Amino acid sequence: MAKQLKIIPLGGLGEIGKNMTLLEYGRNQIIIDCGSKFPENDQHGIDLVLPQFDYVIENQEIVRGIVLTHGHQDHIGGLPYLMQKLNAPIYGTALTIGMVQRQLEEAGIRGADLQVIDDKTTLHLGPFAVSPFAVAHSIPASVGLVIDTPVGTIVHTGDYKLDETPAGGRTTDFNRLRELTPNGVLALLGDSTNADRPGRTPTEKIVADTLDRIFDEEKGQRIIIATFSSVLARLQEIMLLAHKHGRKVALTGRSLQQNIELARDLGYMNVPEGVLVDIKTSVPNEKLVILSTGSQGEPRSALNRMARGEHKQIQVHEGDTIIISGGTIPGNEEDVARMLNNLFARGANVIYGPLATVHVSGHGSREDMRIMLETVQPRFLIPVHGELRHQHLHVRLALQHGLPAANAFILHNGATWCSDGEKAWLAENVAAADVYVDGTMIGEVGDHVMRDRERLAQDGFIVVYIPMNKRNKLTGEPHLVSRGFVRMDTSGELLDAARVQLKRELMKNGRNPGDITRETLQNFFYRETQSRPIILPAIVQV
Amino acid sequence: MAKQLKIIPLGGLGEIGKNMTLLEYGRNQIIIDCGSKFPENDQHGIDLVLPQFDYVIENQEIVRGIVLTHGHQDHIGGLPYLMQKLNAPIYGTALTIGMVQRQLEEAGIRGADLQVIDDKTTLHLGPFAVSPFAVAHSIPASVGLVIDTPVGTIVHTGDYKLDETPAGGRTTDFNRLRELTPNGVLALLGDSTNADRPGRTPTEKIVADTLDRIFDEEKGQRIIIATFSSVLARLQEIMLLAHKHGRKVALTGRSLQQNIELARDLGYMNVPEGVLVDIKTSVPNEKLVILSTGSQGEPRSALNRMARGEHKQIQVHEGDTIIISGGTIPGNEEDVARMLNNLFARGANVIYGPLATVHVSGHGSREDMRIMLETVQPRFLIPVHGELRHQHLHVRLALQHGLPAANAFILHNGATWCSDGEKAWLAENVAAADVYVDGTMIGEVGDHVMRDRERLAQDGFIVVYIPMNKRNKLTGEPHLVSRGFVRMDTSGELLDAARVQLKRELMKNGRNPGDITRETLQNFFYRETQSRPIILPAIVQV
Repeated sequence: MAKQLKIIPLGGLGEIGKNMTLLEYGRNQIIIDCGSKFPENDQHGIDLVLPQFDYVIENQEIVRGIVLTHGHQDHIGGLPYLMQKLNAPIYGTALTIGMVQRQLEEAGIRGADLQVIDDKTTLHLGPFAVSPFAVAHSIPASVGLVIDTPVGTIVHTGDYKLDETPAGGRTTDFNRLRELTPNGVLALLGDSTNADRPGRTPTEKIVADTLDRIFDEEKGQRIIIATFSSVLARLQEIMLLAHKHGRKVALTGRSLQQNIELARDLGYMNVPEGVLVDIKTSVPNEKLVILSTGSQGEPRSALNRMARGEHKQIQVHEGDTIIISGGTIPGNEEDVARMLNNLFARGANVIYGPLATVHVSGHGSREDMRIMLETVQPRFLIPVHGELRHQHLHVRLALQHGLPAANAFILHNGATWCSDGEKAWLAENVAAADVYVDGTMIGEVGDHVMRDRERLAQDGFIVVYIPMNKRNKLTGEPHLVSRGFVRMDTSGELLDAARVQLKRELMKNGRNPGDITRETLQNFFYRETQSRPIILPAIVQV
Repeated sequence: MAKQLKIIPLGGLGEIGKNMTLLEYGRNQIIIDCGSKFPENDQHGIDLVLPQFDYVIENQEIVRGIVLTHGHQDHIGGLPYLMQKLNAPIYGTALTIGMVQRQLEEAGIRGADLQVIDDKTTLHLGPFAVSPFAVAHSIPASVGLVIDTPVGTIVHTGDYKLDETPAGGRTTDFNRLRELTPNGVLALLGDSTNADRPGRTPTEKIVADTLDRIFDEEKGQRIIIATFSSVLARLQEIMLLAHKHGRKVALTGRSLQQNIELARDLGYMNVPEGVLVDIKTSVPNEKLVILSTGSQGEPRSALNRMARGEHKQIQVHEGDTIIISGGTIPGNEEDVARMLNNLFARGANVIYGPLATVHVSGHGSREDMRIMLETVQPRFLIPVHGELRHQHLHVRLALQHGLPAANAFILHNGATWCSDGEKAWLAENVAAADVYVDGTMIGEVGDHVMRDRERLAQDGFIVVYIPMNKRNKLTGEPHLVSRGFVRMDTSGELLDAARVQLKRELMKNGRNPGDITRETLQNFFYRETQSRPIILPAIVQV
């Protein structure tokens, strides 16, 4: 059998986040991106979700390199964990590599082989020739990748939109993309994030124009703008707007300070002389813009500390204008709403989502995606970077424009897509589960613990001490202690009744007293309260 | 001191849900609405949230009646709980009373005094003359209220939008509102839900037109429409559309069947002869519309059971067109997304929010609210039905149109607003906390239990059995049992190390062994894992 190309997504399919895709040809593997994902609301106690790295580590001798498309966490956030176990060169544009370097340093990982590439060169990694091309996205220096393989050319779009007037001026480079694919494209791995949004994603210029108008209208007020610390092009626009309107800019939030410092050092950001001031500098309100993290209502973010009155330097007061310049990521709605309410309670004038266009997406909508499909004209389409509905809608769009249904592949993480350059088929899956980071524990907390947490959250637990002698005869009163179920102080009657019934059952002294206890109390409490606390019997032999 | 009017909101301020407002004059009280609220994502294990009824119950001899604006749960869902403790007549339009009657019966409450009123009459309750007026909203027979009191006229809008082409044809009756307020309005209690949406809320007719177009495009396919069981006017439109396109309608979901039956019985819904069929009837796919509950991704709803392949009668398959005709309530995004993904995975063509206008809000936007303010021209404005940001934005809108800032009142639940007809001021608060329903327990689960549940969800717990003699000397090995923290099977080393350290500390035999255990293990596990499981020491005297 001839050698075949394998494409194996380890993350980012069936989900938004932790993007990671492998390309394999013979004994050669390259890795595209290695992201992390934020937990969902019902993934209790989890700090971060990672791709499962086992397959990569087991085959580490064939890894020729890691190529990054851009510096967002859902594309690089897994590296501090992967690089604890893997030794391979990492390639990315200067800003991306700068962000990775900082994160590896913070994780105490030294000596990683970091290589800066630009979007004009071609990188040779074993049998793969990887050529980045510029794309417009919400962080500078983003690229898509054209990857020549022995069986054909693969295009990975990275995250992109088609924006003719982007902040920072970086448009998606279709000319280079066409030049790089003279012999057609075997497969397109295309960003699917906004596959359910009709039309084109609005240009970033709308946001700059809206902010300009607000700066005009809010003369005399302090302006606080919360945004993602990684939308560096927008941060650049805000610097220029502040300068234009005669304001200084102060920063609060560590990631914001770090990213701006890095972008300035690397020449990705031009801050007019004297505009940036320390947060402790005294500047009249009407001459100040504060840039802050916290557009998602994250509990410990700078803006949320202001909202709760816990920020060391900044007290929000009547007359402040606060602009939330970031879309709410699904799942964060309640946190954002609470923060907004707290800011209004302090008298601020808060301008957010529905009230004005203070944010646009960094991902293309259906019309952007259609243009990408028509430009690339791939033989096979593999939608990436999206939940299942986005993948399906991406495929439907392609089918409407002529792709044969058999040539569209809706993959899940761990699927192995194979091609010999003519046909494409699926081979055996590799392991690609969610790996949970909880504090310093990585992968220690699995599905079983998560189910316990969910049940504890719903109904709490009851520990039952049962004093018994060696012949399993009760030698005293069972004792019930509960947390998270009912109030111990006011529910004495309920717990007493449970104890009486339990004692009666235990005196019958038949089966295992642990089983009797669980069964009796589960039934009793469900009948009385319709709740199912976890019952933990403790037989104490005395 | 002359008698004064008091307005006391017990729910619906600073929140969306559990609307309930009291009006008091001397020893006379009327209650407007008595709603329930769905819990937020971090209110673990809670089924429903109610207003606190204590103030009403303590003063039950002065309650002259309960007046309802419409039949949505956030306006009537608290009645099955309140009416267990209160004896007072309930007034509402026929549909509203029908829905209340069913819910009281289901709760086993008999003999409630239910009175049907219409929007042309005036109700005399002690010193209050209550005159309903028709409003357009997403459930038929909705009313606002004009309440004449000895110190002036109060207008409570209920939930409303200004829709000139509503489904069902019921527009907001400004003529009657003006006729009822010849001497001006002392205070307006106005719906604030959409105070952050510019412009007018689109007419319900857009939804009917979109559905009509989809029915045209999807000829030959089975159509499944999920919507709120209470948007009866939209359900009416769907019946007519099905008839027009030669389809039958089958229902799945108990609340949907009950509401449609009730609306038909009371003459609020006109179903063309032969259109409605039993879900078990065999109808060709292209001749069938299935109406279903579950637009919010509720786990046990009909649509979610279809999505998971657990619905008894309906298997979703390739070619089905599924329309989600309901906006996603904030907090439900993740549930809805999962359900959509599952439906796509079954091959269905799912049409939802961003893809087409298959839902519009039942609440007016800023321009609707402005027109209401200009029509009523109240001396005082009390925004109701909204989170704090909606209340603030409602007030700002009024200030922009001439209301003096001193005449706008942003109240919280439990505030007592007083007026003598000239001035307005605030008096002492009454108790108005959230009351949690958990299974059959009402108010048993309070903030303390909720905090335990949150901590258990985050980090689980560890029970530590410590065998000791009467002089607090260890007589054996401490034993640790954990749930929801780490996997017991693979974390032996961690737990062993904890046990060894605990034993060492306990052997020092100084302070209370419970305190030593908590302190030692909390510090140990935080250092090792950055987690803080609940530590529950159990000293076992042997």
